[in-house]
Amino acid sequence: MRRALELATRGPRGLNPQVGAVILGPAGEILADGWHRGAGTAHAEVDALSQLAPGAARGATAVVTLEPCNHTGRTGPCAVALLEAGIARVVYAVSDPGDASAGGAERLRAAGVDVVAGVEVDRARALIADWLAVQRLGRPLVTVKWAQSLDGRAAAADGTSKWITGPAARADVHRRRSEADAIVVGTGTLLADDPALTARRDDGSLYERQPMPVVLGQRAVPGDALVHRHPLALLHRDGENLGGESENAPSLMDELRDLGVQRVFVEGGPTIASAFLRAGLADEVLVYIAPTLIGSGTGGADRTAVRFIGVDTIAAQHRLRVTSIDRLGDDILVVAEPAPPAEGNA
Amino acid sequence: MRRALELATRGPRGLNPQVGAVILGPAGEILADGWHRGAGTAHAEVDALSQLAPGAARGATAVVTLEPCNHTGRTGPCAVALLEAGIARVVYAVSDPGDASAGGAERLRAAGVDVVAGVEVDRARALIADWLAVQRLGRPLVTVKWAQSLDGRAAAADGTSKWITGPAARADVHRRRSEADAIVVGTGTLLADDPALTARRDDGSLYERQPMPVVLGQRAVPGDALVHRHPLALLHRDGENLGGESENAPSLMDELRDLGVQRVFVEGGPTIASAFLRAGLADEVLVYIAPTLIGSGTGGADRTAVRFIGVDTIAAQHRLRVTSIDRLGDDILVVAEPAPPAEGNA
Ligand SMILES: NC(=O)c1ccc[n+]([C@@H]2O[C@H](COP(=O)([O-])OP(=O)(O)OC[C@H]3O[C@@H](n4cnc5c(N)ncnc54)[C@H](OP(=O)(O)O)[C@@H]3O)[C@@H](O)[C@H]2O)c1
Ligand SMILES: NC(=O)c1ccc[n+]([C@@H]2O[C@H](COP(=O)([O-])OP(=O)(O)OC[C@H]3O[C@@H](n4cnc5c(N)ncnc54)[C@H](OP(=O)(O)O)[C@@H]3O)[C@@H](O)[C@H]2O)c1
Repeated sequence: MRRALELATRGPRGLNPQVGAVILGPAGEILADGWHRGAGTAHAEVDALSQLAPGAARGATAVVTLEPCNHTGRTGPCAVALLEAGIARVVYAVSDPGDASAGGAERLRAAGVDVVAGVEVDRARALIADWLAVQRLGRPLVTVKWAQSLDGRAAAADGTSKWITGPAARADVHRRRSEADAIVVGTGTLLADDPALTARRDDGSLYERQPMPVVLGQRAVPGDALVHRHPLALLHRDGENLGGESENAPSLMDELRDLGVQRVFVEGGPTIASAFLRAGLADEVLVYIAPTLIGSGTGGADRTAVRFIGVDTIAAQHRLRVTSIDRLGDDILVVAEPAPPAEGNA
Repeated sequence: MRRALELATRGPRGLNPQVGAVILGPAGEILADGWHRGAGTAHAEVDALSQLAPGAARGATAVVTLEPCNHTGRTGPCAVALLEAGIARVVYAVSDPGDASAGGAERLRAAGVDVVAGVEVDRARALIADWLAVQRLGRPLVTVKWAQSLDGRAAAADGTSKWITGPAARADVHRRRSEADAIVVGTGTLLADDPALTARRDDGSLYERQPMPVVLGQRAVPGDALVHRHPLALLHRDGENLGGESENAPSLMDELRDLGVQRVFVEGGPTIASAFLRAGLADEVLVYIAPTLIGSGTGGADRTAVRFIGVDTIAAQHRLRVTSIDRLGDDILVVAEPAPPAEGNA
């Protein structure tokens, strides 16, 4: 199973889970192995079987990180492929959470195959945690990030804000960008800051993994915007339907999910961050707090980091559960997630 | 010196420092001891000497927590009293920081007394740290405290706010109130919340030490306000001159200092807290952060915890140095102080 898990990581994150498979002979020797290379390609078990001569897998054991599927998609059901190959024993880690694809283990057992489930299930689950979350939520996981002063400002009254937070906080943001599949900003931020939307190391070099850049808003993206030099193509949408039930067009969440995005990193600005919070689309919030006070401006101008999020009275507050507090240089990072309902103080 | 320090704590905090003294005979035996009971009463050395018959202190050693004074106030200079009593040796901890009162050690030495300084100086300094700060600043130390949501709101748009923070945070506030000499609120908070302004334990009982209640604002304090039941009498001022150089009337800081207040706890609300921050009168800020997001209201109403503090552009931000971050139940307490100038991020 360890080997199968290792093989799984060779596959890409995307619409389908990362899955690895190893076919073992009677003495435990490896006959073949395989992994899933993404939607539309062979599943891991089938990839492994395809390397064997017909009949070579008869009586063998298949070790797979995810329960073999039971549905006919772009590929046939893996359960059937394993049966046809004469596999006698199937060992897997995580049960298939899909409605359509589950039932593979049952089908195999019904056909007389010895099936063992749950082997190395924690590691296997961790590997595809984001994919499992997408199956559960029906949409990608969303992290909403912002930087603010201790008193909740994203900028001073005149809009100046550069370097509210320090280098350690910025490095942390880039690392987390590199773990996301998409990064979202509004046209406000795009036009104000011309961000590259890449995930960069301290020395300016790009991380291997880059999030797909997404810009939301009706205003045009200038032809010379830095984001056009991003290694991945820009997705530009109006952002009017972030996650609601299908109106005229599929929602942004639907579209990103269907593009294989498992994790979305919402970088702001304040208008976009607030729109995601208001829509209940924040599975995690990252608040980078600079040790500074800004307050409001003389004329009443006030650049708060969080705007209208649907709260007019205290009972409607978005109660959070703090998962961690860290000091990053002079700054503080608070990571939190929505509190389970009915928590909070009496 | 340990004994002298212990005696010092019997005296009251106030305009004068807490000082203890012990007179030792040639064999190190205690001949007498004393402590200072507050402005207008005998200094510790004189209090100790007064217990001895004339001549009994000849050749003895005086151990004092603070350098014997050299000026004639409501009492004569202690240095002279010690000389007149025939003390041969003086051991003290902290040097007198006063312009008028310093020089006692020099005067004693000039008269042939053996003088040893700096004994147990750290403990002795800690004991009178607030008093020493008042001497240095020329005003009481000020702590500005507020409670806010993670995004910097003191309340929801409709003004509802009760229990933004939980019981552990509230208990911490009460403990800190009991360590202050005065507690300040504005008429806004007084009229909205009718606070008792006492320092209470969880069971509702009063701490021994209570801060003097101070209300700022032109509006009247209702005759039935809870604050009238406070064990200490209410000080009600308009709050127009918090700490400025003397205009028509002495500033609030001058007045509190002259009342012997060493430490002021500013509890708000937002208008008063911002006024202290704007005036540069915040030696320490305590931000109790509830893990919740509130944002602004539908109509634009926004109950931020910090208002105008004199910052219109980012260069004017009030940069802080975080001294501690603690979790209090579900809440977070950030303690910070003004950052030394020219610190902050490049
Ligand atoms: N503190 C931080 O963490 C942080 C992070 C990023 C940026 N910033 C700063 O924030 C400033 C920009 O802030 P911002 O709030 O104006 O920009 P923004 O949030 O980046 O963009 C706002 C724009 O997004 C579009 N939009 C798309 N979908 C939307 C929806 N569902 N709801 C509302 N608007 C939607 C609208 O533009 P259209 O009119 O084009 O439709 C809207 O004006 C910049 O100065 C930037 O430096 C701060
Ligand atoms: N989140 C928290 O930590 C916290 C703490 C305390 C209270 N609160 C809440 O805050 C609300 C009250 O807030 P608030 O801001 O209206 O009340 P506030 O700050 O308690 O009082 C403001 C009033 O103080 C007077 N004042 C005196 N000196 C002043 C000066 N130098 N500058 C400005 N004003 C001065 C003015 O009243 P006059 O017109 O009488 O002169 C002013 O209207 C209440 O709902 C309370 O529950 C929150």
